[in-house]
Amino acid sequence: MSGQPYAGEALGRFLAASRWEDIPPALRHEAVRSLVNHLGCALGVARDPAVTTALRVVAEFSGVPVATIIGQSGNGQRRKLDPMSAAFVNCIAGNLLDYDDTHLRTVIHPAAPVAPPLLALAEQRGYSGAEVLHAFLLGLEVECRIGNAVSPGHYDRGWHITSTCGVFGAAAGSAKLLGLTATQAWHALGIAASQSAGLVENLPSAAKNVGMGNAARHGLLAALLAQQGYEAAPAAIEGPLGWARAMGDVPQVEEITGGLGERWEIARTTYKPYPAGIVFHAVIDACLQLRAELDVPPDAIAAVTVAGDALLLARGDRVVRTERDARVSIHHSAALGFVRGRAGVAEFEMPAVLDPALVAFRAKVTAELDAALPRGAARVTVRLADGREQAVTVLHPRGSEARPMSDAELAAKFRDNAVLGGAADRADAALEALWALETAPEIGGLMALLA
Amino acid sequence: MSGQPYAGEALGRFLAASRWEDIPPALRHEAVRSLVNHLGCALGVARDPAVTTALRVVAEFSGVPVATIIGQSGNGQRRKLDPMSAAFVNCIAGNLLDYDDTHLRTVIHPAAPVAPPLLALAEQRGYSGAEVLHAFLLGLEVECRIGNAVSPGHYDRGWHITSTCGVFGAAAGSAKLLGLTATQAWHALGIAASQSAGLVENLPSAAKNVGMGNAARHGLLAALLAQQGYEAAPAAIEGPLGWARAMGDVPQVEEITGGLGERWEIARTTYKPYPAGIVFHAVIDACLQLRAELDVPPDAIAAVTVAGDALLLARGDRVVRTERDARVSIHHSAALGFVRGRAGVAEFEMPAVLDPALVAFRAKVTAELDAALPRGAARVTVRLADGREQAVTVLHPRGSEARPMSDAELAAKFRDNAVLGGAADRADAALEALWALETAPEIGGLMALLA
Repeated sequence: MSGQPYAGEALGRFLAASRWEDIPPALRHEAVRSLVNHLGCALGVARDPAVTTALRVVAEFSGVPVATIIGQSGNGQRRKLDPMSAAFVNCIAGNLLDYDDTHLRTVIHPAAPVAPPLLALAEQRGYSGAEVLHAFLLGLEVECRIGNAVSPGHYDRGWHITSTCGVFGAAAGSAKLLGLTATQAWHALGIAASQSAGLVENLPSAAKNVGMGNAARHGLLAALLAQQGYEAAPAAIEGPLGWARAMGDVPQVEEITGGLGERWEIARTTYKPYPAGIVFHAVIDACLQLRAELDVPPDAIAAVTVAGDALLLARGDRVVRTERDARVSIHHSAALGFVRGRAGVAEFEMPAVLDPALVAFRAKVTAELDAALPRGAARVTVRLADGREQAVTVLHPRGSEARPMSDAELAAKFRDNAVLGGAADRADAALEALWALETAPEIGGLMALLA
Repeated sequence: MSGQPYAGEALGRFLAASRWEDIPPALRHEAVRSLVNHLGCALGVARDPAVTTALRVVAEFSGVPVATIIGQSGNGQRRKLDPMSAAFVNCIAGNLLDYDDTHLRTVIHPAAPVAPPLLALAEQRGYSGAEVLHAFLLGLEVECRIGNAVSPGHYDRGWHITSTCGVFGAAAGSAKLLGLTATQAWHALGIAASQSAGLVENLPSAAKNVGMGNAARHGLLAALLAQQGYEAAPAAIEGPLGWARAMGDVPQVEEITGGLGERWEIARTTYKPYPAGIVFHAVIDACLQLRAELDVPPDAIAAVTVAGDALLLARGDRVVRTERDARVSIHHSAALGFVRGRAGVAEFEMPAVLDPALVAFRAKVTAELDAALPRGAARVTVRLADGREQAVTVLHPRGSEARPMSDAELAAKFRDNAVLGGAADRADAALEALWALETAPEIGGLMALLA
């Protein structure tokens, strides 16, 4: 062996040695913001059949119900499961609409696999708010670093990177919360490697949810097994027959181990103002701006041209038949901006997909390539019935790294989601508990508000 | 679409349409033999810490305990868990020593991921012996066919094929037992694809067990979710961003869909007489034969030369320090043949690794390449202290496709394992119940004997 540690070894040391008081305040606050965003997303889809079906299936096999399922109180439904099962269901909810956080470099949605096992463990065992936030932050960091080491090839090859890397984040966070030693944490990450799964092919189906739920559940399982003496191969992540290479990647190990505790990937996470694919946010913003500037009814608009880079066109120039289509459609994004003047969760559900006003407007929209535009940007040009033309270019949409959502915007998003999830009456109290989480001695009160 | 069905679609139809009465009697009996072999292996390691640790960790999260854990009765230990947890633990036990069955073309150990969820479901829901055997047979068949479609590259690239393909077998068997429609079974296999994981790098560690246990558990989960309406992508197995290609393979779909119900892979499964790597079985057989022919004490032997193909030498020419080393050592295999005259489970445990008589004999053994020998064969040449030399070549060891273990040999192996697992008193009754399983109206009595 050279002087270079194994990837898992370096991460294990980092996890065991990290102290909350050494984390910069801005990052600590980012952990809270990320949790607010994640929990709101989970709350918003509490009534979705994908969530309630998963809940019904795993509830049959659940152990002692000590961990809250987000948004599932009342109506005779069980609101708690064992921590493993709770991690599975809450992760599915958090990521269901891809409305959650995004680490742009890897397209990982970091929070959904990491937060649920930590909240479940904390609810069961009485960990404090600061302990949860600390473990959460470290889990997100490990997850994104491992994602960096295999990006961009990993996702392109068919791996649903939020699932495949999420299990490492869940393992890392659980290892920290359980107080594992550096060596145990190293083994936990190696055990996670043997549980990493999830396919891009399955993204348009409910099978995506299963890969996600497993990532959260398995990270916790890995840490619990490592705590009880289960071991893994030293180079499970980067070895010749290990995780990265089996998946087809030559891992950039320096991305995992370089500058730990100095360079923070979690600082680069973004939050979505709209539950659409992230490259469509500039389209929505540009249309909202044009709508405000022009102040004309949709009928006054003759044609809309949306220009963007190759990715925007490859993903978004499509016929809209389903909710999933709507969330990755240039035409639907533009129609929402002009017709509805908003783009919340309801604007991507079937009533909106079928809304005659939106159907008619989508037909006026044309997509065109402008290779000079950077990724994530869009230029929208409107031609009015009276012949006038006006164009807006958005380089940095709301919620991007350059224009992060404010705390107030995140709180508003949380409240909107709470309304959808039938928890509007408790949204403000939950937000209050979240913003104060760092000083909370335990999280039971928060979880009760989220149930 | 051309006239070719999707891989999962063809398998789904096959599963839904198959009738037990149409299965040839020899194959039905093979399903029983496979189950005898699997359950014996699980019973033999019931006291292994790898099994008891897994049991302890998942028991904390188990639901209603309705499914028997093999070999875990008495001593205050819990002997039942919920079906998901039972599938996890029993799969780990069945494959722990790789002493179970082998599908030589893929090196899949087929039974361990498939039998446990089916036995657990049957115990919970009252399925008959024939229903379990039928689902088991079909699960094995699907598992090995999918393995064929990606072999040999899959394993070579770092995928622990028993785990990665085992989840499909568990899903297929569970789908059949639950009575899923062809379409639901197709979705179950697609959901399984998003849960397929397990790394060769981790094989020398307990992390291997986690990949195995998950395969069994997740196949059941996939079938239960599909039954409740969860769907997967149509080409989850073979699509451009699907299972096989993400894992680096160009799938030979014809291996999956060709001759379903006519050509049976399960007919090609072999069972091990020794808990060693399968390529070492010819070495052991040759040494046992020489011992019988020469009838001299180990001291009378000056040197032993073992000749074999490149695989035998690559895997087996090693220093023996651990139990795992012993199971893949040319030198230890030869020493057992001459010194002990047997090669059971105890002969590969630490007391044997450290036994001075075996240590001394291992030093007399030399390995040499003979590229002319086929895979799985060995030639052993003994030079006695008095100068005499004698050689034996074994082309087809006991338990190989050409020399399958008899029912009586399988029963003897089961009894040996029962002794190790502390269940010697019930071994004969359990065997009797197993040989009569096809006519059993339910499996509760059998599971009680195996507890």
